[in-house]
Amino acid sequence: MMQKETLGQHISQQFTAEMDELRSRFLGMGGLVEKQVNEAVTALIEADTALAQLVREADKHTNRMETTIDEECVRILARRQPAASDLRLIISISKAVIDLERIGDEASKIAKRAIQLTEEGESPKGYVEVRHIGDQVRKMVQEALDAFARFDSAQAREVVAYDKTVDREYKTALRELITYMMEDPRSISRVLNVIWALRSLERIGDHARNIARLVIYLVEGDKL
Amino acid sequence: MMQKETLGQHISQQFTAEMDELRSRFLGMGGLVEKQVNEAVTALIEADTALAQLVREADKHTNRMETTIDEECVRILARRQPAASDLRLIISISKAVIDLERIGDEASKIAKRAIQLTEEGESPKGYVEVRHIGDQVRKMVQEALDAFARFDSAQAREVVAYDKTVDREYKTALRELITYMMEDPRSISRVLNVIWALRSLERIGDHARNIARLVIYLVEGDKL
Repeated sequence: MMQKETLGQHISQQFTAEMDELRSRFLGMGGLVEKQVNEAVTALIEADTALAQLVREADKHTNRMETTIDEECVRILARRQPAASDLRLIISISKAVIDLERIGDEASKIAKRAIQLTEEGESPKGYVEVRHIGDQVRKMVQEALDAFARFDSAQAREVVAYDKTVDREYKTALRELITYMMEDPRSISRVLNVIWALRSLERIGDHARNIARLVIYLVEGDKL
Repeated sequence: MMQKETLGQHISQQFTAEMDELRSRFLGMGGLVEKQVNEAVTALIEADTALAQLVREADKHTNRMETTIDEECVRILARRQPAASDLRLIISISKAVIDLERIGDEASKIAKRAIQLTEEGESPKGYVEVRHIGDQVRKMVQEALDAFARFDSAQAREVVAYDKTVDREYKTALRELITYMMEDPRSISRVLNVIWALRSLERIGDHARNIARLVIYLVEGDKL
């Protein structure tokens, strides 16, 4: 009987360790993509091609991390029979890594635009907007991950609400850039590079909002 | 003993029924978003505001379907201890519904562009491209779902490969539309409506590719 209990405790400890490892891997990946977003924006604003290349290479790494974390989720689900709350956490992580991976993709796209801008020449307009919206969505990613780490649904709700602000500012920036292109049609293809970068930033905000929604589901969900 | 066996059979039959129900709900949602894509493209090309409104309303319906299917996935995972292959199927469905829901979102965005084009006036260019790329990505969604229904990884690989063709044609269309805008700057905001619609179509292709990748993982994955 004592042996059985010790075995049970051992398995339970192992499970806790696996769950901790899974969570910390997820948050580690989150920190990495947050850095990618930051560096992609810097590369674009400072026309730093070398940094842009680094961001594009880092994307391969985050893609691998997604696969690893995902396999770990499936493995835990297959081997253990996690209780409802752990099940929810595993499923949320398995979904949130998709968003993290897509954030990495968008950062990589911004880096690509940064390279194109150094090749085709700077855009005459839009850098202030990239920096501003870049700061906003990076903060969204950071706070969504922070909310995930602390199971803080109030903070997650703030991230969800903030996405509306970002969407509004993105639309304002777009209108201004379109007006500019109409006045100076020769700038169109350069300004469009900035517009694509802004659109990627707006998508990053959407993914941060998705992660925040998963936190709300995780903390407040009582559907099981 | 006989009673126990009967009970076991009963549970197993119930589980099979639940899995069938889950699969058919997923495919049903797939059929619905495929229809949304089709109608969004038609609404844009034919400047049909009423149809565009219908597409935007249908989006609420697919959002609800995503939640329902997702809850069903979690419920099955929590109550049963599915074997590896069923576990993979449930997890794949729970991921693929996210892509279906996003396809619905993009269809809704195309419908919004259709409405804007009727309000701001037709674009002088781009409709041929919308129809052409629209046909391609609708076919991708259809075949990805078909591959899912028949667990056909060969067909899924074709969908993945086809995404490159769509990306190439999207880029060609974009270049042409940019050249056009440079020659006729007054058309910029109208042409941009078409460009946003094309971009949504390209995203729909990406989501179809994601679903096709899940089929490959489902059929050929031996990571468990």
